[in-house]
Parts: sequence; structure tokens; C-alpha cells
Amino acid sequence: MQAARQRAKELDANDPLRHFREEFQITDPELIYLDGNSLGRLPKRTIALMREVVEQQWGEDLIRSWSESWLPLSTRLEAKLAKIIGAQEDEVLVCDSTSVNLYKLALAALPLRPGRNEILTDEANFPSDCYILSGIATKTGHRLVTAQSGASEATALVSLSHVTFKSGELYDMSAMTEQAHKAGALTLWDLSHSVGAVPIHLNGANADLAVGCTYKYLNAGPGASAFLYIRRDLQEQLQNPIQGWFGRDNAFDFGLDYKPRAGISRFLTGSPNILSMAPIESGVDLILEAGIDNLRAKSLQQTDFLIDLWETQLAPYGFSLNTPREHKKRASHVSLGHPHALAIDLALINEAKVIPDFRTPDNIRLGCTPLFTTFEELAIATERIAQIMRTRAYERYLNDAPTVT
Amino acid sequence: MQAARQRAKELDANDPLRHFREEFQITDPELIYLDGNSLGRLPKRTIALMREVVEQQWGEDLIRSWSESWLPLSTRLEAKLAKIIGAQEDEVLVCDSTSVNLYKLALAALPLRPGRNEILTDEANFPSDCYILSGIATKTGHRLVTAQSGASEATALVSLSHVTFKSGELYDMSAMTEQAHKAGALTLWDLSHSVGAVPIHLNGANADLAVGCTYKYLNAGPGASAFLYIRRDLQEQLQNPIQGWFGRDNAFDFGLDYKPRAGISRFLTGSPNILSMAPIESGVDLILEAGIDNLRAKSLQQTDFLIDLWETQLAPYGFSLNTPREHKKRASHVSLGHPHALAIDLALINEAKVIPDFRTPDNIRLGCTPLFTTFEELAIATERIAQIMRTRAYERYLNDAPTVT
Repeated sequence: MQAARQRAKELDANDPLRHFREEFQITDPELIYLDGNSLGRLPKRTIALMREVVEQQWGEDLIRSWSESWLPLSTRLEAKLAKIIGAQEDEVLVCDSTSVNLYKLALAALPLRPGRNEILTDEANFPSDCYILSGIATKTGHRLVTAQSGASEATALVSLSHVTFKSGELYDMSAMTEQAHKAGALTLWDLSHSVGAVPIHLNGANADLAVGCTYKYLNAGPGASAFLYIRRDLQEQLQNPIQGWFGRDNAFDFGLDYKPRAGISRFLTGSPNILSMAPIESGVDLILEAGIDNLRAKSLQQTDFLIDLWETQLAPYGFSLNTPREHKKRASHVSLGHPHALAIDLALINEAKVIPDFRTPDNIRLGCTPLFTTFEELAIATERIAQIMRTRAYERYLNDAPTVT
Repeated sequence: MQAARQRAKELDANDPLRHFREEFQITDPELIYLDGNSLGRLPKRTIALMREVVEQQWGEDLIRSWSESWLPLSTRLEAKLAKIIGAQEDEVLVCDSTSVNLYKLALAALPLRPGRNEILTDEANFPSDCYILSGIATKTGHRLVTAQSGASEATALVSLSHVTFKSGELYDMSAMTEQAHKAGALTLWDLSHSVGAVPIHLNGANADLAVGCTYKYLNAGPGASAFLYIRRDLQEQLQNPIQGWFGRDNAFDFGLDYKPRAGISRFLTGSPNILSMAPIESGVDLILEAGIDNLRAKSLQQTDFLIDLWETQLAPYGFSLNTPREHKKRASHVSLGHPHALAIDLALINEAKVIPDFRTPDNIRLGCTPLFTTFEELAIATERIAQIMRTRAYERYLNDAPTVT
């Protein structure tokens, strides 16, 4: 254990990104937060930014901020996000929630593949995506197929998570998109668990459609606005089912006839949630400043280190590794399986100042956010998990229900 | 003019709500803000609230705030909003944008009236509502009818603004709902321009469905989350077309099968935008503290006063009154018509420190927000409008395009 701590300190000392931790509000250094894959930490610059948006832009500039600050904000965010996901700036839109965006894109995509009656997903996809696809399938007369098998000539749309939420497995977007295209299907990727964590090349993979959230590795705050991507050549072919005024050509002439805006903007709906959008900028800026390739290198180093720690210190207590070992199949969180995972998770939160999260049935997710997670935190968290097991401190939580995390 | 100022001062001195102005951040007393019907002012308590939500709840408490603060926030907001719109607390939901909520409710309502092929609205409805209804109608094989005529046996749904955005006309919700029900149709009211401005009795009117925004008279900030209402007995009959995880029974068991939550909660979609929701509470609290009947009394007194001022000081310059004079047909803004309305609006904003807004083709909207608008402001704003006309200061704006307000 002392050796692990020592090694962690060396890794931290040699970490070229170590100064980024200072960009975040961390007032309790004892608290080890390994849940940045669910809700990222608060960047210090977001504190100043939110004061500016609330107190100056809203409070002082009032309605004038729509022209001067808030409409330009969307454009700026989209250009920056495009760099992180390997897209052009006119292929990205910040709006609504991931669920609503997935709904809009999936429903819009189906008419492009007439005569095909299947939507393909898999069981590792985020449940909300499956619910939404299932609702659409019922309404449109498609069949939602949950299978590992590839697309067939019946498949209209393949909708998958780029990184799965439970095991943290990273899918090969390029190969799977190619496979879908060979079968004549469109692809719709959910980037929620990959954006800001791994390099994404939507254009490089020739991906058709994508959605994603900004409150995980982009550190944009609770329920921050989501984004969507539509490859440029598809934009004019797609119709937004939710024809709100922000997606209408020349919304402010207030005419009664709907004509969609040119390009991707037609997928806007109602007034953008400015207070939930503004913090995206700080989050995205931090990713761009650190460089996504540097973040990926550190992330792999951290998850490697964590897997080593699991093997030596935690496997003896019955923990399994639920995350792939291969680099190319792993994103930025490590899931450890244990029959008492929920009780252990609660004991860690309540008694050991370690915050991971629990995902049914048996996963403890340990998220590494290279912008603020240190190697030493991983070593100490592992010691604390071992301590919980050694002292059986988790036993008093065996009958507890999960909390929302 | 001196007489008007004097009368205004007396009205302000006798105004029982005058102290509520101190609840708002107003650092430039020269600036007369008559656009609270588009974006309400910043309540001072929202400044403290947002710092708490960002810096403490997100920054310090991190993911634990979902259970401890953010899920209870929704419930609390819904109970308070229910009081303002005359509903039960289990009939209101805070979520998404007005446009997305209108989409969900309209699409969910149609199957309850099989065999009827019309959706009825009118030309005074907010354009975004018409666009959304039109998109739905096309998809479902209905016809969107824009008419003054009442519902017929072909009408499935009547969707109207409770207060129209241009003229500020207040509709008789109770009578029109009764008329729609007699024809066998459902009603869907957009409360965006009435909530917080006039007393609303959804239950009293036996209204079926409603949506509304919170960033106008509720002063909840730019693009704040919207709300929806479903009368209790309809809730179990309606299916949310956007089946996101927050609307699923027991979302956090992460099962793959979708089963809707009991009651209205099934109309939730994705993760709530916490930073865009939190300020709703300050806004709604202020309405409840002032009392909606008191606000309505002051609002009518203010719009009466403004109409008097128009008659004596502005009608001579060619302004018409586009808002009904009858109290029961008037909400809280007064629209003045003028052939050069846009240029006058721009001159007021740029040269006279008066902020109204412009709505095509010829409306200058002067919004009275009784929580912070003073009678003296109305008298001075009128003087400044007259001054713009007298000096022809608007002429240099005759070729300008509208800004977003």
C-alpha cells in the first residue's frame, strides 16, 4: 500500500496536466470525488462566469443580452464543441436535453430509410435511449431490436452509446459506422460518456447523427444543456418533429407559416436555457486548453493504475473487473463488480469520503477525470475501499435503497 | 404633463405593493424597463440563490445534491406554481421549454379524440405554438384550423394563448373551455403571457391541458425552464411521446423496459436543467408574497393609467391603441400601433433609456410588471415617447431591422 502511494506521488509529479486541478473548486481535499462521469466538478471560472451572466447580462443588460450575449454564446459554444467531437462548427447544435435531442434525431432519421422496419440498439445502451427509441418504434411501426448482431437490410437506424454507461466500454465508432453503412443503415451515437473523455472523430468515422450531454466530463453543471450533431449533407434532408420558433427561418418576423431554417439550426425548438448553457463554455475551454489527446493519455494511465490497484488490493475481497482491459475498448471510468456493490458504495460515501456511484446490479463505477483526479486519490480511494471491506463497515447498508447519483 | 407626473406620484405613494420594487436589482433608475413581459427583471434574492446553487450545491455537495436539493426543488416549485395557476400540486410539472411541452401535450391529447381530424387555434396565438401544432397535424393526419369560429364535432383539440402576445388580449378561459367541451374537444392553453400577470383558475375553468413559460412575469431568467399542467383525471390516459428516463417508473433501476411513472411525472423527459430551474423559486415566491389579486389590481390601474396617457399625449402623434380597453379583456401589457413602430422602438432603446419591444407589423408593447414598474415610470416613458415624436429622433432608424427582444 505504501508502494502504491509512492508510485501515485511519482505519477502525479510527472503529470503534465496536474495544474488543471487548480482550475476547480476543491475546498475539501479529503473528499475523493470519483463521480465526474456523472456530474463533473465546478470549474472556478464558472463561478465568475455565472455571476456575470446572472448579475450583469440578465440583471443589468436585460433583454438586450439576447442579441449581444446569448445568441452569440450558442454559436461560440458550437464552434468549440465541434473541435472536441471532430465535426464542423455548422454540424453541432447546443439545445434541449440529450433525451429530447435523441428523440428529434431518431424520429427525423427514419423517413430517410423507407421500407426498413428495424431500429437496432444493444442492451448496454443507456436506458433512456432505449425508452425513447422504443416509444418512437411503437408510433412509427418499427421494431426496436436489442441485439449484438450487426445491421441488416431491415435496419433503418443503429443507435448506440459510444461508451457504455455501466462497464465503460468504448465502442469502435468508425468500424461500427462502416458496418451500419454497408447494410444501408444510418447511425446515431450517444456521446454522453465519451465527450471530453476520449478523442471523438465524428467526421473521420463518417457518423451520421449524434447527441451528448455536457454535465459529465465537460463539467458544465447539473442538467446543463445537451448537444446534437448532424453530418452536413444530411441536414437539409431532415425535418425536426418539434417545430419550435427557434428552428424557424426568421423567427422574429412572427409569421404564422413554418419554414425551417437552413442547415442544422432547424433542430432548435424553444428558447435556449441560458443559465444552463453558459457554463458549457468554461468546461469546453478547459478541455481544449488541456488537449483531448493529453487527457486521453492521462486517463488511460489512471485507469491502468486503478486496474493494477484493483488486482492487488481489491480482487482478494471479491471484486471483479467489469471494464475491458484493452486500451482501445476502455474509456475513463472503471467498473468494479461486487455482490454487495450498493452497500459498499453507500459506506464509501457516508463513512469514507469517497464518492463513486452504483449502477445496478453490482457495479461500483470509479470515474477518472484527468482534469482534476490525481493518482494519489486513486491510491487512497483504493485503501479506503479495502478498509471498508476489512472492517465490514458496508454491512449496515445491506438493506438500503440506492440514492440518485 | 406635469399633471400626469403628479398623478403618478400620488398613485405610487398609495400603492400597497410599492416596496416590492426593492426586491429587484435596479442599479440605473433612469432606465425604464417596460419589457418584463418578454424577460422579467432579476430579483435580488436570485443572486444569492444562484450563488448557493452553483457554489455550494454543485461546487461542494456535488452529486449528493440530486437527492438532497434538486429533486426536492422540482416538487417544491410545482406546489408553488400550482397556487398561481389554480391547480393541484400533482397537476403541474416544471420541465423542458414551452415549445417542447406543447409538443408533448398536443401529441398526447389527439388519440383521446379518435375520429376527429381538426386542431383549432387562432391567428393571435403565439407563432411557435402554431408551428408546433402544424408539424403535429401534418404527421398525424389532422388539419390545423386557424379561425375565430368555435370548436365543432370535427375538433379534437383547441389550443390557444390565454393572453395574446401582440395585443395583450385576455381570453375568457372558462367560457371558451366550456364551449370546446360542449363540442367534445379538449383544450390546451398557453399561459406564457398570463402567468404571474392575471389570476388563473385552471381547475375552476375545468381546463384540460396547459403550458407556460417562467421568464416573463415570473422573473425566472433567460430561457428558464417551462411548465405544463394536466388535469388529474386525464393524466393516466395520456402517453408522453418523448419517453425519457425521468418519466419512467423507477428510473434509477436502469431497467431496459419502459413503464411510465404514475400521474403527471410521466411527462418528464431528460435530466432537469437545474441552473435554469432554480431561479423560478424566487420569482414564484415574490408573486405569492404580493398576492396575485393585488398584482392584478395594480396591473389594471397601471394599464388604465397608460391608456389615459396614450389618449392625451400619444394619440396626437398617430399612435393607435391595439389593446382592448375592457378590463376583462386586458392583461398586463399595452400595445400601441404606429406605422413607424420599429423605428420608434429603436429610438426609445438607443436614445431615451426606455425599453419596450416591437412586434411586427406595427406594435410597440409596453409591459407593466406591477412588482417593479412604477406609475412615475409610465408617465416619464410617455413623455420620452412624445419627445421622440416631437424631435423626429426616430427617423434615423427608419431603415433598421428589428433586434431580438
